[in-house]
Amino acid sequence: MMTPRVKEILSWYSNENPGVLSNLRRLLCSGNLAGTGKMVILPVDQGFEHGPARSFAMNPPAYDPLYHFQLAIDAGCNAYAAPYGFLAAGAAEFAGRVPLILKVNSSDSLFKTKNPEPAITGSVGEALELGCAAIGYTIYPGSSERNGMYEVLHALSEEARASGLAVVVWTYPRGESLSKDGETAVDVVAYAAQIACQLGAHIVKVKPPTAHIELSESKKVYETNNIPISTLSDRVKHVVQSCFGGRRIVIFSGGETRGNDEDFLSEIRELAKGGAFGSIVGRNAFQRERSQAVKLLEGIQAIYQEAK
Amino acid sequence: MMTPRVKEILSWYSNENPGVLSNLRRLLCSGNLAGTGKMVILPVDQGFEHGPARSFAMNPPAYDPLYHFQLAIDAGCNAYAAPYGFLAAGAAEFAGRVPLILKVNSSDSLFKTKNPEPAITGSVGEALELGCAAIGYTIYPGSSERNGMYEVLHALSEEARASGLAVVVWTYPRGESLSKDGETAVDVVAYAAQIACQLGAHIVKVKPPTAHIELSESKKVYETNNIPISTLSDRVKHVVQSCFGGRRIVIFSGGETRGNDEDFLSEIRELAKGGAFGSIVGRNAFQRERSQAVKLLEGIQAIYQEAK
Amino acid sequence: MMTPRVKEILSWYSNENPGVLSNLRRLLCSGNLAGTGKMVILPVDQGFEHGPARSFAMNPPAYDPLYHFQLAIDAGCNAYAAPYGFLAAGAAEFAGRVPLILKVNSSDSLFKTKNPEPAITGSVGEALELGCAAIGYTIYPGSSERNGMYEVLHALSEEARASGLAVVVWTYPRGESLSKDGETAVDVVAYAAQIACQLGAHIVKVKPPTAHIELSESKKVYETNNIPISTLSDRVKHVVQSCFGGRRIVIFSGGETRGNDEDFLSEIRELAKGGAFGSIVGRNAFQRERSQAVKLLEGIQAIYQEAK
Amino acid sequence: MMTPRVKEILSWYSNENPGVLSNLRRLLCSGNLAGTGKMVILPVDQGFEHGPARSFAMNPPAYDPLYHFQLAIDAGCNAYAAPYGFLAAGAAEFAGRVPLILKVNSSDSLFKTKNPEPAITGSVGEALELGCAAIGYTIYPGSSERNGMYEVLHALSEEARASGLAVVVWTYPRGESLSKDGETAVDVVAYAAQIACQLGAHIVKVKPPTAHIELSESKKVYETNNIPISTLSDRVKHVVQSCFGGRRIVIFSGGETRGNDEDFLSEIRELAKGGAFGSIVGRNAFQRERSQAVKLLEGIQAIYQEAK
Amino acid sequence: MMTPRVKEILSWYSNENPGVLSNLRRLLCSGNLAGTGKMVILPVDQGFEHGPARSFAMNPPAYDPLYHFQLAIDAGCNAYAAPYGFLAAGAAEFAGRVPLILKVNSSDSLFKTKNPEPAITGSVGEALELGCAAIGYTIYPGSSERNGMYEVLHALSEEARASGLAVVVWTYPRGESLSKDGETAVDVVAYAAQIACQLGAHIVKVKPPTAHIELSESKKVYETNNIPISTLSDRVKHVVQSCFGGRRIVIFSGGETRGNDEDFLSEIRELAKGGAFGSIVGRNAFQRERSQAVKLLEGIQAIYQEAK
Repeated sequence: MMTPRVKEILSWYSNENPGVLSNLRRLLCSGNLAGTGKMVILPVDQGFEHGPARSFAMNPPAYDPLYHFQLAIDAGCNAYAAPYGFLAAGAAEFAGRVPLILKVNSSDSLFKTKNPEPAITGSVGEALELGCAAIGYTIYPGSSERNGMYEVLHALSEEARASGLAVVVWTYPRGESLSKDGETAVDVVAYAAQIACQLGAHIVKVKPPTAHIELSESKKVYETNNIPISTLSDRVKHVVQSCFGGRRIVIFSGGETRGNDEDFLSEIRELAKGGAFGSIVGRNAFQRERSQAVKLLEGIQAIYQEAK
Repeated sequence: MMTPRVKEILSWYSNENPGVLSNLRRLLCSGNLAGTGKMVILPVDQGFEHGPARSFAMNPPAYDPLYHFQLAIDAGCNAYAAPYGFLAAGAAEFAGRVPLILKVNSSDSLFKTKNPEPAITGSVGEALELGCAAIGYTIYPGSSERNGMYEVLHALSEEARASGLAVVVWTYPRGESLSKDGETAVDVVAYAAQIACQLGAHIVKVKPPTAHIELSESKKVYETNNIPISTLSDRVKHVVQSCFGGRRIVIFSGGETRGNDEDFLSEIRELAKGGAFGSIVGRNAFQRERSQAVKLLEGIQAIYQEAK
Repeated sequence: MMTPRVKEILSWYSNENPGVLSNLRRLLCSGNLAGTGKMVILPVDQGFEHGPARSFAMNPPAYDPLYHFQLAIDAGCNAYAAPYGFLAAGAAEFAGRVPLILKVNSSDSLFKTKNPEPAITGSVGEALELGCAAIGYTIYPGSSERNGMYEVLHALSEEARASGLAVVVWTYPRGESLSKDGETAVDVVAYAAQIACQLGAHIVKVKPPTAHIELSESKKVYETNNIPISTLSDRVKHVVQSCFGGRRIVIFSGGETRGNDEDFLSEIRELAKGGAFGSIVGRNAFQRERSQAVKLLEGIQAIYQEAK
Repeated sequence: MMTPRVKEILSWYSNENPGVLSNLRRLLCSGNLAGTGKMVILPVDQGFEHGPARSFAMNPPAYDPLYHFQLAIDAGCNAYAAPYGFLAAGAAEFAGRVPLILKVNSSDSLFKTKNPEPAITGSVGEALELGCAAIGYTIYPGSSERNGMYEVLHALSEEARASGLAVVVWTYPRGESLSKDGETAVDVVAYAAQIACQLGAHIVKVKPPTAHIELSESKKVYETNNIPISTLSDRVKHVVQSCFGGRRIVIFSGGETRGNDEDFLSEIRELAKGGAFGSIVGRNAFQRERSQAVKLLEGIQAIYQEAK
Repeated sequence: MMTPRVKEILSWYSNENPGVLSNLRRLLCSGNLAGTGKMVILPVDQGFEHGPARSFAMNPPAYDPLYHFQLAIDAGCNAYAAPYGFLAAGAAEFAGRVPLILKVNSSDSLFKTKNPEPAITGSVGEALELGCAAIGYTIYPGSSERNGMYEVLHALSEEARASGLAVVVWTYPRGESLSKDGETAVDVVAYAAQIACQLGAHIVKVKPPTAHIELSESKKVYETNNIPISTLSDRVKHVVQSCFGGRRIVIFSGGETRGNDEDFLSEIRELAKGGAFGSIVGRNAFQRERSQAVKLLEGIQAIYQEAK
């Protein structure tokens, strides 16, 4: 499974120790997309972020943490990501069967605030203890609390890398300086992705960007330099370029639950066309019946397989 | 006392080291309910939380910390939980006779605040020194200060587990984002229980939920998915399911002092019917004369014994 | 000097290591009241708390730190308590002649605030270096800053106990949630004493309580349960009971300088009658000429001697 | 390359260990200006500070982190400075070919604030791991948050020096106490440079100062003592004198992108005439086509070469 | 040089280890006043506190850090005190020739605030590395931030003493609770000096007090006890007494630059008459031509020599 493409991708991380390189390779060489340089990851942090009923009531077997390990395996995902409790509950039963990513910070929605700030809810030690390949961390550029998040991310990354773990960063612009539309604006998403890369992320996760441009300083730049942003694939291309000229793995979220699979797969096609390294699909996977979830995830994988 | 049911429960914590498993087993295999998978715990933190007269004046022997150790033993409780001072005062005399849970944070009521924030008043080192089986910790989801509580709980849990101690979490929604009714609303209680589980709690303690639904995002979910919440046993079942599909121990508080034991035992029957793993009964136990307290606690145990 | 009463008192601290027990014994077995189970302590923190002129101008020899060591010895006190500077200045000259208590936090009055918050001004290491028997710490239940005080007290206590030092807590209700009268209200003083005990204090120091009841939740409790509070000795008895049913050493402050010694001694008689373990007398001792101070302190000791 | 001038400059740092002296020598003895005591440094922190499109869209090869290492080498710069992500991405490929400076704090512009406060985004350990010669740190004198920056700089400097690394400080006056013009006022720039020197900077980086005087206390001093400030070279001379009478290395930024190279080189001539130790040129270098950048940087070096 | 007076002074610090005693002796036995028990210290922290031009433009050689070492030596001062940068720049050249005091906190004046709070800008490790005899630290009693200063001072003092360093405290009342006149009021200065002593200062530095009394609680005390405060020497005597009855070294600042030397020396005579242990003279020394500075400092020393 050590394909030329995987070798090429690993060459971008030539400063890392063999432990980190091994875990990046585990993430790239697991599941149906092993060796293609593409990834589909199953994340399940909604229990903490939105509460149990909003997350699992539409597919009750998903209340059980073991369900998600099995789903990630059955659907041939590259990895499964979740907070401490969910991973701890199945890490022994499923030891070594699917790469795990420990989400080490989380936000709940029982307290409302316009400047989000997650709590640290996991550690590098726990990631090692549970046999994880990586830690996951969310930053909210645009929040008044961003600096604390960057500093903790930096410190945890340094510790994770020293322990041979990879670092996956969810970068979600949000906070009082940004409009609602600005959270997915192409200039803001590209900027947020750059911040994650500068902070040492190996893998960056963003939302698919819209054609909106949020920052007044950006407008002129996008126009003067004729940066194409009219199609989603254009914008994905721009975000991938913004991540060190394509030398970092950038993956895209699936977003809210869709009624229509074809719409969803169309979007994936645009992502793949733009050079996305893959998708991270949570609610569209675990909030439907298992066989349908497997079918959808395989459909996504097929698109990336073709695009490799 | 290593019954099949205890074995089954311990299997849910298969990631833990033998020390944690031994202490969970101690909690499950002590007292009158030993081996049933059910628990009745005596907690006495009211001295700190409400002051001594409000806690003990109606039963003056209870001013003495030794009283509560003896009560827990006489009434066949699974464990006795209290803050540092109360436990330290009797831990040597009663060494090894009843599993102890050190409450490591506490709030007093001499300062009023709408966003509660407890003080750290115990440590893992003290729990070990006093021979405890577990640490206890209270979180207040909904408080502006919640993140600090989650982070300290996470850090103390990691330290406790590494030392072979179990972790019991009191999860009480409270704070400026929630209405008074919202504090016991079924959606909020289930969410607060999920947070505790994700943070690594082995045993979760909640208040019996009401049929109120607090969060606008929840309403639709409960209706669309036809989640039954009209009876207390329905709601308990939902909370238990919300704790990792029933793979975590969830126990329920007894609440304020009741005049009428039969009312109280009726509520316990509903809890048991819904699948509660037990009850934690403080004021209804130590605020009455000892023999009556023993009688009530044995009555509760009988209900759970039957429900096992 | 290891009298049955001292043995009995030490038995209440059976969880402590021999170092702590030795130091508690040193405090109980020094001075004129040695072996009686009663204590009179000389505290001199007014230099920091009120400034030098307000503290010492009425008796200028008291500007000199050596004066207070000698006074404590001459008057047969059980211990002398002061902040770092005052103790450091005489600890070598008077090494081993009187048990010392290092006050490890202090407040000055050059900055006014309604929510008092002391600064940490001493350490366990310094207490050991100076040959002290105990650390002393002030908490202000009712202050918005109370939680920080409780947490530091808890951490310092754990460190002190591990080093074989006893812990003496000054517990003074004060802050924006309390009225001026509430600071000495019997319900509030009893509550503050309970908090100190739960936090691990071996010896608790409170102000003599008044018959005022501050908290609305308390009123009904005191009435319903007929708790006697009309005389000072009634109230002292209630406070002593509130300290773990009498299983903690509770001592009372002497308060502001009195013109009339007989009034003062009358109050001491009430304290002794109520079961106080002793008094802590600062300004009434060092703010008068030395021979008069010795006479007054001996008068106080005589009362406690009789009451033992 | 150990010229008399380099020896003289190193003599100003006679308190430092051989490791620090070696790294200062590496910085002074690399590139086209090696041995002259002058420096031209390439900094690329705009990706983090301004976002990727505003930084690189006008010269797309610059999205790639490897580009900047090569540019610094091709243009004969003394060093290349960047945040963690950018350095980590090329440190192995270019190991040992150009001295590196790890920027250990950074600010992004997705959150607006009048009192800037950077986040810590790098560590001394990472600087060592990547083979850097120095750490770089930005302070904002005039910000309400300045003290935290000074304290972290001080602590990181102590750690860096103990590890044999040099310390480069970007000192940018900014914050609510200063007017916009005040940020580059000659009195403020000289003061900010002095602060950096007192905090232990080996190399100080400031903006070219204007003739504006910001502080009322300064006005009289500049007039009474006839400090010449009318030309840029006068002001540079004053800033260099303000850095320990010329015993610290002070370099000047190139500022915003210029359309006209001749204007830019004229300013460099003024800087050199005033005794500047060199320039740090970012946007004017990497925001143009590579060959033009090399030409401009060589032009700058020629001016300093002549001025040595 | 181990005169009876030096022996007597050292006896006040009998709790200290030989390292601290050696360094106190170095401070007392250096320069023209060696052995007299009196001190004149040269402090140069104005570069950080007021900026370089306001500090050095009137005597440009003083921009150079080496200048001040030489001035302290030439003028026979007991010690030279400065922040890290200034000391580091000459500590190797002047190693062992004059006792050094590292100022470990500092405030700049580019940000205005009514509650001053200095930044920590030096460490005990640096003081040792530079061969210092003591650390210097400023506290601002009366500031809302005072407690943080006290706590850091206490912690640094404990560390310094354990390393054999002496501790010199600049105690300057200032902040929102005090009037402008109150900053030098005799009651406030005496109180601030007491605080420094209680926190463990070996040497206390205050401003010469005025006859103003600031605190309402103080007025009665000063009147009732007939504390003489009408002349400066009266007030100095009171401040010295307030420092542990004269058992601590108290020195006085020279204040702002004076035009008239005779006025200045008159003030020194009053200080000496009141029992001051010496003066700390900064701006009146380095802001004039070197030979005049030496002459003035020698004049001051002559007064103290006579007063010994």
